[in-house]
Amino acid sequence: MSSVFTKIINREIPALIVAESEFCIAFLDINPLSKGHTLVVPKKEVDYIFDLEPVLLNELMQFASRVAKAIDACHFAKRTGVAIIGLEVPHAHIHLVPINGIHDIEFSKPKLSLTREELGAITKNITANFI
Amino acid sequence: MSSVFTKIINREIPALIVAESEFCIAFLDINPLSKGHTLVVPKKEVDYIFDLEPVLLNELMQFASRVAKAIDACHFAKRTGVAIIGLEVPHAHIHLVPINGIHDIEFSKPKLSLTREELGAITKNITANFI
Repeated sequence: MSSVFTKIINREIPALIVAESEFCIAFLDINPLSKGHTLVVPKKEVDYIFDLEPVLLNELMQFASRVAKAIDACHFAKRTGVAIIGLEVPHAHIHLVPINGIHDIEFSKPKLSLTREELGAITKNITANFI
Repeated sequence: MSSVFTKIINREIPALIVAESEFCIAFLDINPLSKGHTLVVPKKEVDYIFDLEPVLLNELMQFASRVAKAIDACHFAKRTGVAIIGLEVPHAHIHLVPINGIHDIEFSKPKLSLTREELGAITKNITANFI
């Protein structure tokens, strides 16, 4: 069975996609730790990030770097933190989380509740800054 | 003034170094979240990871991947999580943290107190598995 991320890649389930390349995709986390919290995912369904072949790991990181710069350009927070956990969905993914302090990237924190309008505006803002 | 990590790279202050390449170094975190918690650092003193030039970001991630595989070979935990925060020391660094669950990589958790002997044994173990 395909992962929930593969379903997003294949447009079988909706997502707030902010950027896409041949090998990677980025969309908003639906349970964000902060405004602009984005997931960056390789299209190839590999469970563990360190099992990605070297070329694909490079592709993923360069793509994540471009997405992080787009997030930074939106000025949600001081900078973009990174977390890669991968114990929930067996499809490697990078959390890009706008942070002002170390505790902004703790997954035990209550998640933000954003309206559909707010999420739409964030998506538009990141997309517009992605180069 | 050089960062604390540059001082480690220059051997001006001691550290439990587990791996080193031309461009990167890895050593144990002295306030570990879990056994095997390691910092991976580019030798070039750049504050923000997404400001690294693309070639160096690739070097760093490939090196981090090799260190993560060495950590995994030590069987400290299920897999190695990644956190990049970078608000404390202005020299980019990747936390590699052996994790069994999402909360194992929360920085508000009390840090482990390991003896000098335990830290020495962990260093030896990771070094021996680094290829």
